[in-house]
Amino acid sequence: MNRQVLLKQRPVGAPRPADFEAGESTVGRPGPGEVLLKNLYLSIDPAIRGWMSDARSYLPPIELGAPIRSGTLSQIVESNVEGWPAGQIVQALAAWESYSVVPERALHGRVQPLEGIPLPSMLSVLGGTGLTAYFGLLEIGRPKAGETVLVSAAAGGVGSVVGQIARIQGCRAVGLTGSDEKCAWLTDELGYDAAINYKNPDLRLALKEACPKGIDVFFDSVGGEILNTVLTRINRRARVALCGAISQINAATLPPGPSNYLQLLAKSARMEGFTTLDFAKRYDEARTDLARWIREGKLHYRDEIAEGIDEAPLHLLRLFNGEHRGKLMVKLADAEV
Amino acid sequence: MNRQVLLKQRPVGAPRPADFEAGESTVGRPGPGEVLLKNLYLSIDPAIRGWMSDARSYLPPIELGAPIRSGTLSQIVESNVEGWPAGQIVQALAAWESYSVVPERALHGRVQPLEGIPLPSMLSVLGGTGLTAYFGLLEIGRPKAGETVLVSAAAGGVGSVVGQIARIQGCRAVGLTGSDEKCAWLTDELGYDAAINYKNPDLRLALKEACPKGIDVFFDSVGGEILNTVLTRINRRARVALCGAISQINAATLPPGPSNYLQLLAKSARMEGFTTLDFAKRYDEARTDLARWIREGKLHYRDEIAEGIDEAPLHLLRLFNGEHRGKLMVKLADAEV
Repeated sequence: MNRQVLLKQRPVGAPRPADFEAGESTVGRPGPGEVLLKNLYLSIDPAIRGWMSDARSYLPPIELGAPIRSGTLSQIVESNVEGWPAGQIVQALAAWESYSVVPERALHGRVQPLEGIPLPSMLSVLGGTGLTAYFGLLEIGRPKAGETVLVSAAAGGVGSVVGQIARIQGCRAVGLTGSDEKCAWLTDELGYDAAINYKNPDLRLALKEACPKGIDVFFDSVGGEILNTVLTRINRRARVALCGAISQINAATLPPGPSNYLQLLAKSARMEGFTTLDFAKRYDEARTDLARWIREGKLHYRDEIAEGIDEAPLHLLRLFNGEHRGKLMVKLADAEV
Repeated sequence: MNRQVLLKQRPVGAPRPADFEAGESTVGRPGPGEVLLKNLYLSIDPAIRGWMSDARSYLPPIELGAPIRSGTLSQIVESNVEGWPAGQIVQALAAWESYSVVPERALHGRVQPLEGIPLPSMLSVLGGTGLTAYFGLLEIGRPKAGETVLVSAAAGGVGSVVGQIARIQGCRAVGLTGSDEKCAWLTDELGYDAAINYKNPDLRLALKEACPKGIDVFFDSVGGEILNTVLTRINRRARVALCGAISQINAATLPPGPSNYLQLLAKSARMEGFTTLDFAKRYDEARTDLARWIREGKLHYRDEIAEGIDEAPLHLLRLFNGEHRGKLMVKLADAEV
């Protein structure tokens, strides 16, 4: 049998356990151009909250009664796709269920276990999370040595990697996060040059002190008032890489946009959205860099892994309560050798 | 004597005649690195309204009691700058006054009268207006043949040129403007493929009909609800070139930003500000293209020229009442041969 977690109703505001329900189905069989996956780890990402609503985005909404769409680390059980044999471990876009049947386009990469790197990290720092940090910073932010890179949600799975890549590029890395403990983690363990608790009553002054030369790149996963305030401190030709807007992901109605957006005009600056899918052909190149930085001790990361599919809804809610550090995942099964 | 129009008080809302006052001073003498200009034509641009307020921008605010800063077409009377001899006609950043003393950096280009092109047009289609259209569309918008380019304030000095350059690039050009008469001017005389009266009660539907393949480039001088609505219709990898926000230029407090800005994320799209100053080294190249298109009959333009410095405040107010077509200027004097 195929155990599942289904979308019972679209959340109003923050997701609640009642928005999900357990389900079961028979394990599917792959048709032409499809594979059957055994899902090993679920990737718990803010994007899931977006897919649960019926807003337009780069992927259609999850249908009511369907299993929750999710990035996964999976093993191919049966394959009708050349080059993707049974036994292969893959990163995939699948769902919260024990087994998924998916088309070839949902297979985002073959996973070769790397010496010294635990398998689930292939889903975090070497998976979508690390790839988001890598391409968003390097291709959208385009930091140059000596510039100042500011990162919001800096203690999250993506943000914790972004600041370290900025340091590797020779930039000053400054993180925004929601507690003094997470600030200390950023500076003491991840090597951020400075960290700001965004609950600081004078965020503008705190930015001025932490970024005395202004902000050249802002990697933003938060939006709202943080984005709006940061826009007042950007430098000429600054780049704002839009990764998400977790501050408003649970909002029932669309909050106002950044009233300071005309700072983009005053500073000849740029704000640009992206998804890792835009860079699908370059995943291997990115993973090679990320793995090398890990081996060289330049890139640290943290995974928080829950056990069992029933834990997935509560683990998703932890994305929004401000307490986690690094990447959230749910383990469903071990790989078969 | 040097006749001037001075900033008497900073406008609250739309500028009013009481915000200006006539002034007189003695004609200045240029110091080292400066020139004395006789101003021939004043360029009447929305940017002036921005400089009249005390908001931060790419140039500091006009000081109270100082003459209104303005692009000008001027003739050098006396020069202490090598390469800028007396008699030379120039585009400059000067002021609403008969004579200005300016430093070399305020000299934006030497004007060589072109056969078949009236002198004041060197300030409009071949001046800052045309350069804004040229660089904003080609360098920020980066249109490709077959794409759809939407232009707001399309009957204005800049917008009327943008759509025609888009057509020259092989794009579908669609204009937004404020009256059916101006819509007809855009399509019948300027060659826009379609035009939309933005007062249309269902702007979203009108956009859908005029841009059936979505919007690849939006050249925006308006902001506000028009920008916000257009964001719902952009294509993947769309570019929004921010030229201004005339809908809010008179606002006393900053209006909300575009609540749909996350469409930039959903579509991996980009919003980018610019000024022509970013491209100062390429003005000659742009003027060569623009002049050739005019001679080839591919680029039409319209100048509305008032006479006498006392007319400058009222001509500026016409920028905001929705009645003008093309570029507004004020003639102060003829060039001396």
